[in-house]
Amino acid sequence: MSTWIAVDWGTTALRVTLMDGAHPLDTRSSGDGMNTLARDGFEPALLALVEDWLDGPMPVVACGMVGARQGWAEAPYATTPCPPVTGRMIPVLTHDRRLEVRIVPGVRQLSPHADVMRGEETQIAGILLTEKDFDGVACLPGTHTKWAHISAGEIVSFRTVMTGELFATIAGQTVLRHSLSGDGWDEGPFLEAVSDALSRPETLTARLFELRAADLLHGQSATQARSVLSGLLIGAELAATRPWWLGRDVVITGADKTTRAYASALRAQGVRPRIHPAADMTLAGLRSAKDKI
Amino acid sequence: MSTWIAVDWGTTALRVTLMDGAHPLDTRSSGDGMNTLARDGFEPALLALVEDWLDGPMPVVACGMVGARQGWAEAPYATTPCPPVTGRMIPVLTHDRRLEVRIVPGVRQLSPHADVMRGEETQIAGILLTEKDFDGVACLPGTHTKWAHISAGEIVSFRTVMTGELFATIAGQTVLRHSLSGDGWDEGPFLEAVSDALSRPETLTARLFELRAADLLHGQSATQARSVLSGLLIGAELAATRPWWLGRDVVITGADKTTRAYASALRAQGVRPRIHPAADMTLAGLRSAKDKI
Repeated sequence: MSTWIAVDWGTTALRVTLMDGAHPLDTRSSGDGMNTLARDGFEPALLALVEDWLDGPMPVVACGMVGARQGWAEAPYATTPCPPVTGRMIPVLTHDRRLEVRIVPGVRQLSPHADVMRGEETQIAGILLTEKDFDGVACLPGTHTKWAHISAGEIVSFRTVMTGELFATIAGQTVLRHSLSGDGWDEGPFLEAVSDALSRPETLTARLFELRAADLLHGQSATQARSVLSGLLIGAELAATRPWWLGRDVVITGADKTTRAYASALRAQGVRPRIHPAADMTLAGLRSAKDKI
Repeated sequence: MSTWIAVDWGTTALRVTLMDGAHPLDTRSSGDGMNTLARDGFEPALLALVEDWLDGPMPVVACGMVGARQGWAEAPYATTPCPPVTGRMIPVLTHDRRLEVRIVPGVRQLSPHADVMRGEETQIAGILLTEKDFDGVACLPGTHTKWAHISAGEIVSFRTVMTGELFATIAGQTVLRHSLSGDGWDEGPFLEAVSDALSRPETLTARLFELRAADLLHGQSATQARSVLSGLLIGAELAATRPWWLGRDVVITGADKTTRAYASALRAQGVRPRIHPAADMTLAGLRSAKDKI
């Protein structure tokens, strides 16, 4: 019997995959993210998705915010430099004894600056399973984008830039929301804004109100304004992370639309990133953790 | 009879002052800002504060968002370069014939970048009444901080940086809210962050998540985190506006706490700004407009 369950349990969503060894058999998901659950809510939320898969004791390997202090059980961070995942996972006691749950620890960095990740370490393990001996930089775009130096099978160091959350908050909660509605996209203004932010990063915050004024005075379209805001913020991130991608071998792992924007911005700077889908890398990383038990 | 009413009508608040010529007799305020009122709500909101002051026809001079498209009556922008206020105000028809309302137009800039102000032009007129022949730069900190070049009695050009709104949104709406609660203040980390942002503006967005990680890993205090966030954002603003303050004569007009932070940041860069309270400058500017009718 080689079936087991791979669990990607983030802040806002829960995604489970029934595995037969290395092969996914079925995937289900729900909105029961870590944010929505009290400690005693995790087991029922998991059972609601997987109970009919349980015909006996079943290994369950979970990654993500499920291992945070406010999660199901705290999985203390590994500290860089370290392999992204090891066999040292945190077992969780369950009422239903068929569940043999283990949580993959997140990774922390103490210097040169404090940083943390939970979930991305598993995607990085997936990258190392997919590209054996990968030596370079992994860029994982998202709400909190991670940049990680990978070498000799270890996360050497990493850097979080909260570009996705900044974009969502500025576009949704500030006065700019009146000028950025919809979800249109215009590649030209995006790339121009990336380039502007890279060459004059000191003007970033001053550029933002221009998006409102250009709407009021010149009727600038919301699509153009959204593309410029995205370009300014991703450009600012690339300015901050220049040593991470300049002349490096870069892989990007993320959700489709955001991943394409980062790839496009990096290509315009002469980088040739390879792209791996985030869901695939998470599953590969959980497999990698499972194999180390 | 030389009584009249000075009105500062912004997005979130209404403030009225009964004037005898140049002298304030009484001030009242309410939360009936432009944001909360439909077009036919402005006159009742004003009357609710001033009706017992009306013993006959009464000139009322108003500035701020009351003159926006979504306000009481749209007061089309003057265009830079221009005096901050002129006698050319927009009269508003009222049901109560005792009210003789005029609205001070805002100011727009078409190049080198699009920009707009409503209300700050009146404070700038107040600065020019307070410091006759002022030639230099006015910094008006707030939700949307304005920097204006003033020369020969005119606004030559200006620049808006939405630092106040960025601070409120990042501190209140993102993951950093867990690490920045309260309203403590620590001057040392603030000034250090200003200096960091000025010397390495390209790292701004990457520095933000450090505030969360330093809390999780090192128990950094919320007071320190708030001071650093404020310093990073004001430092980024000073980096963007360097040509506006470097070697210039600078006056600051704003609310107490924010004004002190800007003054402190500028002094650390060798600027010696003079400070005028915002409410006084608004009143002086409305007086200046009233005298030009």
